[in-house]
Amino acid sequence: MSLKLFELVGTDPSRPFSPYCWRTRMALAHKGLSAETLPWRFTEKSAIAPHGSEKVPVLLHHHKPVVDSWAIANYLEDHFPDRPLLFGGEGGRAMARMINAFGDIAIVGGIFPLIVADIPNNLAEVDAAYFRQSREARFGGKTLEEVMANRDTGVVAFRKSLEVMRQTLKKQPFIGGAAPNYADYIVFGGFQWARVVSPFKLLENDDPVYAWREKLLDAFDGMARTSPGFAV
Amino acid sequence: MSLKLFELVGTDPSRPFSPYCWRTRMALAHKGLSAETLPWRFTEKSAIAPHGSEKVPVLLHHHKPVVDSWAIANYLEDHFPDRPLLFGGEGGRAMARMINAFGDIAIVGGIFPLIVADIPNNLAEVDAAYFRQSREARFGGKTLEEVMANRDTGVVAFRKSLEVMRQTLKKQPFIGGAAPNYADYIVFGGFQWARVVSPFKLLENDDPVYAWREKLLDAFDGMARTSPGFAV
Repeated sequence: MSLKLFELVGTDPSRPFSPYCWRTRMALAHKGLSAETLPWRFTEKSAIAPHGSEKVPVLLHHHKPVVDSWAIANYLEDHFPDRPLLFGGEGGRAMARMINAFGDIAIVGGIFPLIVADIPNNLAEVDAAYFRQSREARFGGKTLEEVMANRDTGVVAFRKSLEVMRQTLKKQPFIGGAAPNYADYIVFGGFQWARVVSPFKLLENDDPVYAWREKLLDAFDGMARTSPGFAV
Repeated sequence: MSLKLFELVGTDPSRPFSPYCWRTRMALAHKGLSAETLPWRFTEKSAIAPHGSEKVPVLLHHHKPVVDSWAIANYLEDHFPDRPLLFGGEGGRAMARMINAFGDIAIVGGIFPLIVADIPNNLAEVDAAYFRQSREARFGGKTLEEVMANRDTGVVAFRKSLEVMRQTLKKQPFIGGAAPNYADYIVFGGFQWARVVSPFKLLENDDPVYAWREKLLDAFDGMARTSPGFAV
């Protein structure tokens, strides 16, 4: 089978950092699938435009493009049904939609102001300039440094926002139950993104979410832990 | 089959209002099961103590007690597997744990300060006194009226906290997918609780969450809509 994955990187092509690409990386590993990685940078829009996307991840399966991490997870589930299930049935597939929204809003959205000014350090000049300009516009013209200025208090609110997850992990080892599934990878993608680009400490060591993240760093022979990042 | 359900009521025994009991009511209806209702009030601890609980819902199945709405949903799924599924498979059962935490924290916890001082209006004097004393202690001695004083601004934050759900409902009709399942009932229970005890308007009419709530009010021949409550 031929699988290729466009993944967001910066100056180091072996250091993928997008939270959405990490969702896909973990999903591929869960299915026991390997994909050739195609390193992609923010300003390389022309490389993925022919595949109908402006963003990554983009998966190519026998040259057919599948765009967006959620669509890719569903594609993998439907095209490789005999391999370990990502959703654990149709109920899980539906509910994972809400966990996907939690991952986008509470996790990626919550972490963003805590690490945003660290991200350009990982990027070549042209990509750093693009990132700064596009993201500062989203924050109404604030500099990335201004957005991040209060992260020591912001992280307290972020940790509080994880209570829903914390209560879940007090009852069962993973969001997906006894073993991790795509629900876990959705959320983990955000934490791994932070780990790759920033030394900032998001979680306290005695947090059940910390213990959960440790287990996912170790999953698939330590795939996420051995990928370049900060020890957090 | 013999099913009986202890349900929280106030002065009107035909007006059940607990968010957790409503989760169970909807779950029973989903399974096509009917249970004899056993109206129960806050101060009637002795009625359920023999069944090993201090709180409702308590389900009796051939006299065997099942305590706690989550445990009851799982019990129904396991004991009535040939009836419509509440979780849609093991993945859904696991992920519903996190939606249950969302229901407890964001929905019940979020609605509580918006309606709390309206609740005693529904209770007999002895229950109202118990409710006031126990809940005011939880809020560090604030009166229920003080807790609710800022609800006009509090409801704005509450609506914002529903964004995770709103994003989900823009993609699919129900949290459970094309049709509602227990994930929906978890969240709906909180809205129905508010509707029964308080005239306060929680949702704006153009909110996708409002449209979703309308559909659940209509479910099972309008079971929740025809149960006594306020038009909200």
